[in-house]
Amino acid sequence: SVPPGVLPLCHRPLAWGRAPRQPPGLPCTPSRAFSNNKILVELDESSGVATMKFKSPPVNSLSLDFLTEFCISLEKLENDRTCRGVIFASAIPKIFSSGLDITEMCGKSTEHYAEFWRAVQEMWLRLYSSNMVTIAAVNGSSPAGGCLVALSCDYRIMVDNPKFSIGLNEAQLGIVAPFWFKDTFVNVVGHRVAERCLQLGSLHPAPEAHKFGLVDELVPEEKLQEKAAAVMAQWLALPDHARQLTKSMMRKAVLDRLVAHREEDIQNFISFISKESIQKSLRRYMEMLKKKKS
Amino acid sequence: SVPPGVLPLCHRPLAWGRAPRQPPGLPCTPSRAFSNNKILVELDESSGVATMKFKSPPVNSLSLDFLTEFCISLEKLENDRTCRGVIFASAIPKIFSSGLDITEMCGKSTEHYAEFWRAVQEMWLRLYSSNMVTIAAVNGSSPAGGCLVALSCDYRIMVDNPKFSIGLNEAQLGIVAPFWFKDTFVNVVGHRVAERCLQLGSLHPAPEAHKFGLVDELVPEEKLQEKAAAVMAQWLALPDHARQLTKSMMRKAVLDRLVAHREEDIQNFISFISKESIQKSLRRYMEMLKKKKS
Amino acid sequence: SVPPGVLPLCHRPLAWGRAPRQPPGLPCTPSRAFSNNKILVELDESSGVATMKFKSPPVNSLSLDFLTEFCISLEKLENDRTCRGVIFASAIPKIFSSGLDITEMCGKSTEHYAEFWRAVQEMWLRLYSSNMVTIAAVNGSSPAGGCLVALSCDYRIMVDNPKFSIGLNEAQLGIVAPFWFKDTFVNVVGHRVAERCLQLGSLHPAPEAHKFGLVDELVPEEKLQEKAAAVMAQWLALPDHARQLTKSMMRKAVLDRLVAHREEDIQNFISFISKESIQKSLRRYMEMLKKKKS
Repeated sequence: SVPPGVLPLCHRPLAWGRAPRQPPGLPCTPSRAFSNNKILVELDESSGVATMKFKSPPVNSLSLDFLTEFCISLEKLENDRTCRGVIFASAIPKIFSSGLDITEMCGKSTEHYAEFWRAVQEMWLRLYSSNMVTIAAVNGSSPAGGCLVALSCDYRIMVDNPKFSIGLNEAQLGIVAPFWFKDTFVNVVGHRVAERCLQLGSLHPAPEAHKFGLVDELVPEEKLQEKAAAVMAQWLALPDHARQLTKSMMRKAVLDRLVAHREEDIQNFISFISKESIQKSLRRYMEMLKKKKS
Repeated sequence: SVPPGVLPLCHRPLAWGRAPRQPPGLPCTPSRAFSNNKILVELDESSGVATMKFKSPPVNSLSLDFLTEFCISLEKLENDRTCRGVIFASAIPKIFSSGLDITEMCGKSTEHYAEFWRAVQEMWLRLYSSNMVTIAAVNGSSPAGGCLVALSCDYRIMVDNPKFSIGLNEAQLGIVAPFWFKDTFVNVVGHRVAERCLQLGSLHPAPEAHKFGLVDELVPEEKLQEKAAAVMAQWLALPDHARQLTKSMMRKAVLDRLVAHREEDIQNFISFISKESIQKSLRRYMEMLKKKKS
Repeated sequence: SVPPGVLPLCHRPLAWGRAPRQPPGLPCTPSRAFSNNKILVELDESSGVATMKFKSPPVNSLSLDFLTEFCISLEKLENDRTCRGVIFASAIPKIFSSGLDITEMCGKSTEHYAEFWRAVQEMWLRLYSSNMVTIAAVNGSSPAGGCLVALSCDYRIMVDNPKFSIGLNEAQLGIVAPFWFKDTFVNVVGHRVAERCLQLGSLHPAPEAHKFGLVDELVPEEKLQEKAAAVMAQWLALPDHARQLTKSMMRKAVLDRLVAHREEDIQNFISFISKESIQKSLRRYMEMLKKKKS
């Protein structure tokens, strides 16, 4: 049952500064810091709208460091009463986020895989259950984990450029999107589209992604910020409390499922990613990327 | 599991005349009465099609009296073997139903809130699980609870007039649509549209509502009755038994969920609606409506 | 929970030759046989693509013999490492499959009904959970169980001819599609379309079926094979393992539901089909078909 009034249970505060997964050397300043290494955070206190800009060259991949910073930044905004909404965008041209950092999944220890996967889960749990209005301003390509970030927001606006593509293309790499990627995807595009796209690991040029509802709106690149601000204003016109309870009601089942199976999901990830065949396929993919670059 | 042949359990007969929730003074005639205070019921025995016309000025709001009469009328038709289908429409120009009567939720006792909410639940349980073919002929605006009535039918035809709008706009009032409003909505428009519309509390002009499937068909006002009769004939061409079992199979999961959590849902409603902040927001809304009128 | 890596449990090997449901006289050759009585199987070992052509005149109805042969053929391909995909088509003009054989459901013993229904379940469990890429090349009409075969594939291509229709029209015959037909249908077209179509028992001309996603693509009859081969090549470009795990993740919930309620579903079928009213309605339908033919 999903009675109104019950918020998801995943809002445990990040154990700031003493989290075992926090990389050493990360600043644990108690003051409000709006800029750090990989994400630029700006909060306009008059409108209550923050912007989180990903600036982790070359492709905003979701490394352990990036994810940790993402969670800390989101948590700070979540606890900041002046902040009611966040717009996510990239500070790097042509790419929103390339998804999970493959180097974190290749040739590392079991402990590292566990730590990394827990951070991926944490990012999604916090973003998908955020009390703030979340808007993805997708100003570049957004495969795999990058697509998940967009899917987890309340609204997706993408630059109207067929060169930018988006999708959960894990199957192309020989890996499998976890069930909560799938659940999030199904909640946006429905079962049939998700089944077909996940099996084919397809990436969709922006216009195609818009056609079947993977993104809500397309705009010319120069209008993206303006449009995101306008949509945000529309969502913020609603009373926070009613909007938050409604959002929670819609997303609770899917959030609860990961919360209930979190350790199991980590073990599954570890045993899958540790297979020699999977490691080989990821190494091959990375070499292909390197050749492409040079 | 939803084996065919098992009908929902909510078809307990209304404890007519001795129901604790029945307001005193309501006629408890044992004879078939096709007209009463707030709803005009006409049954064409040759076609087996009844019409229930809402005539509770000024805006057909779903008061406790209205809901009680609705349930009694529906129950009578349900038990009448000559009746196989019902068309719902409004006898008041420009409005189908304005939804739940806010005066029933403002400044009343806990007991009253409980009685009222049970009546809202009862209306939905009976309508959504009706063995009859149910068609909403939406000849006017239909916000919130009015929209729920339409959503709970088998088919929705709306007058093709952009001045008439429909939607679950609860969030606009600072309140939250209960989970079974949400479930009914998701069953009609899918998860993504429901998530967005419920959070924004959006009302949709008829043409827009038709575009995303909230209503099945648009017709000019003068063709509404004729169209509703034609669609009804099409549905009545099917053998009742097979159609009823199929309907039950499709709706059972969602019906069972409220049946299983009914008392909890009432308690949730009471504690939510009793909050001073919610009361204040509802009073503000009623004052706004009064000013609008004068 | 649906952790990746867990395949559905229904892949128990067919108890070949000693299955109680196998009709006596059916050849139980241990060698690979690519052709038998009712289904023509051809495997192109270079591409890894098999074709299963239904050739059971007059209308490819799903009799007990047909279903048994279907399961055995599919099982053989499933266990053949050179085979990665199957295309289903009809060798009979104008009809893909007419669905469940009504003569198997009329005037037979309880034991026969049980055996028949188990075979229908088995066909669906194997097809819907197949590790191979499955494509329906729908070259004719495909009502009821014929539609289920198509719905259970990964992709549906239909001949662009409005004279060919497809749909779950059970309600027209006075019977009810079982819950797993419904679940499969909902996974393809969504809840609302399924609710309406199942209640009306509607058959859709190919262009209409394509419009709401019941089939994925329409092609001229002479292009059907070529198109099916091209789509198959696209799906086979993906690594098998990742695609299979993804497919399993998408379909597991619905498969598990029948596995968990299989005996109950057989009992439900028996008690429903044994009703005199249902038997009468089926006899009437068969007589209508006979008159139509002559």
